[in-house]
Amino acid sequence: MSAVYYEGKGSFSVGACRVEAPALGEVRLDVAYCGVCGTDLHIAHGAMDARVASPQVIGHEMSGTVAEVGDGVEGFAVGDAVVVRPLDSRGETPADRGFSHISRNLKFLGIDAPGALQASWTVPAFTLHALPEGVDLRLGALAEPLAVACHDVRRGQVGPGQTAVVIGGGPIGLLIALVARARGASILVVEPNAGRRALAEEFGFAVLDPAADDVAGTIAAETADAGADVVFEVSCSADGILAATKHAAVRGRVVVVAIFPEPKPVALFDLFWKELDVVGARVYEPEDFDAAIALIASGSLDLERLVTAVEPLERVPELFDELRGGRQAMKILVDCRA
Amino acid sequence: MSAVYYEGKGSFSVGACRVEAPALGEVRLDVAYCGVCGTDLHIAHGAMDARVASPQVIGHEMSGTVAEVGDGVEGFAVGDAVVVRPLDSRGETPADRGFSHISRNLKFLGIDAPGALQASWTVPAFTLHALPEGVDLRLGALAEPLAVACHDVRRGQVGPGQTAVVIGGGPIGLLIALVARARGASILVVEPNAGRRALAEEFGFAVLDPAADDVAGTIAAETADAGADVVFEVSCSADGILAATKHAAVRGRVVVVAIFPEPKPVALFDLFWKELDVVGARVYEPEDFDAAIALIASGSLDLERLVTAVEPLERVPELFDELRGGRQAMKILVDCRA
Repeated sequence: MSAVYYEGKGSFSVGACRVEAPALGEVRLDVAYCGVCGTDLHIAHGAMDARVASPQVIGHEMSGTVAEVGDGVEGFAVGDAVVVRPLDSRGETPADRGFSHISRNLKFLGIDAPGALQASWTVPAFTLHALPEGVDLRLGALAEPLAVACHDVRRGQVGPGQTAVVIGGGPIGLLIALVARARGASILVVEPNAGRRALAEEFGFAVLDPAADDVAGTIAAETADAGADVVFEVSCSADGILAATKHAAVRGRVVVVAIFPEPKPVALFDLFWKELDVVGARVYEPEDFDAAIALIASGSLDLERLVTAVEPLERVPELFDELRGGRQAMKILVDCRA
Repeated sequence: MSAVYYEGKGSFSVGACRVEAPALGEVRLDVAYCGVCGTDLHIAHGAMDARVASPQVIGHEMSGTVAEVGDGVEGFAVGDAVVVRPLDSRGETPADRGFSHISRNLKFLGIDAPGALQASWTVPAFTLHALPEGVDLRLGALAEPLAVACHDVRRGQVGPGQTAVVIGGGPIGLLIALVARARGASILVVEPNAGRRALAEEFGFAVLDPAADDVAGTIAAETADAGADVVFEVSCSADGILAATKHAAVRGRVVVVAIFPEPKPVALFDLFWKELDVVGARVYEPEDFDAAIALIASGSLDLERLVTAVEPLERVPELFDELRGGRQAMKILVDCRA
């Protein structure tokens, strides 16, 4: 049984997995698959060394089965297929006003605590969501990013008959587009990368290249000149956040999904003129995981198409080298089974 | 009967008022008082010459009495005390999605059409709101800016027991503070100008100087470390919009009241991290005028304190010279009676 250890300064090693017996209220899992997230790549660039301990196992987009059940755990049995909602909000205080999922002492498993890029992972039972019978564990590993998308779409208050523009067609952008379409919205994806545009088109989305196409004109034509009900900014680009408020209809909503580390110019005049709502969205709440798992189980989203490759755990150090070197990928899953 | 004419390039003249008999659906008013707004001063700086015709009467914060009633007008009689909601949304289209008050072909009376700085003003009857018996017409002239504040507070979803921070203690900032307090919120006003701080203190508000006081620390102490439920950005300053997201609690609201003509850096990380709602607010809807008039009639806001001076109409050209020259004023009313 192996584990990938982050050693700091962008370096990884593969070693023996430390199998931990579950304590009170914990469950030990056999990890099946773990997806590689943009945050993991950020860690691999050394950009989060102040936050991530080393050596530490990272990874947080996983699926697996229950291997051992600790005392005090109800509702889960050995062999159950599960995913982990990797948030530990036990440090919540009244100042968090009940928003546990973004509470200020939140620990994110795989960043602030050991993660899932290992064969055996022991976690608090309150993080578990059961996967329904018959769900492919490869697709189950997409529950976490899909829960992000479900949360973003909920923050956007997307509903039937609406038009949603998704700026940025990476993994989260496409998942948002898929969830918003499942909620009854018409979707327009704006993405400069040709490969990503091609994949978005495979999903049947209308896709525009911001460098070549008339995005504003297309939105106007699609919405009888009103603009988009909801715009998701997922590109983390200066142009993207300026375009987001421009493309929104009067009293439209802009959801800031991308993580902008520094202040960026926003067209506040658009907010005023059209009385926009610009809302932030971060991670997910339990109901978003439930919604994501239901969507996976429904088989309606063609999620398999997002999986670029499945790599063995032993290749993770090379894999991060490849990704840092420019390897194009939508979603890479790591097979963590011993 | 006199009128003030804007002659373009920041120049004003006083001349005879053109008394217009009311057409079908119109009412002719004897204007009593007209307040001077920041927008009027903006016009006086020549900054809106591309939008404002000349010569044209400007002014839109008024009170008066009905002098003549046109055909087809019901519900108003000669002598009735009224105020005008200076929005003409007859050019509304389906693309405005029902938001008449900010529809794209909106005409603003006093900017896009003749205004109230004259003894006699003829307007569509649909713009009128009746003032209750006994309301001082001087305070009635504050209905328009107070309706702005009522709208801003409604966009901020301010409720009892909340903490609201108002960044910018000018006329609109103080009116927002007054309305938010009337809705049951605790208020903190942040204002760099000592004279404005003193006036805010006269109203009984907690007031901070952003250059000298620990604003974040005070908000933390007042909110048990949670931050403000709502922050109103009324200062139109780069520091103000950065502070607004900083001071908001998790899932707090920031209302962008100030008109930022150009994009300004916004701490989008705060939006993400705390899942903030940043909303724009512009003018008002009819219910905001109703709420403003009810607040004026209640006598509970001590609005008299906001009136810096009442000036005769003939002094308006000099008055704008004085204001451009740095005369400090909260709200100046112009007595338009013949």
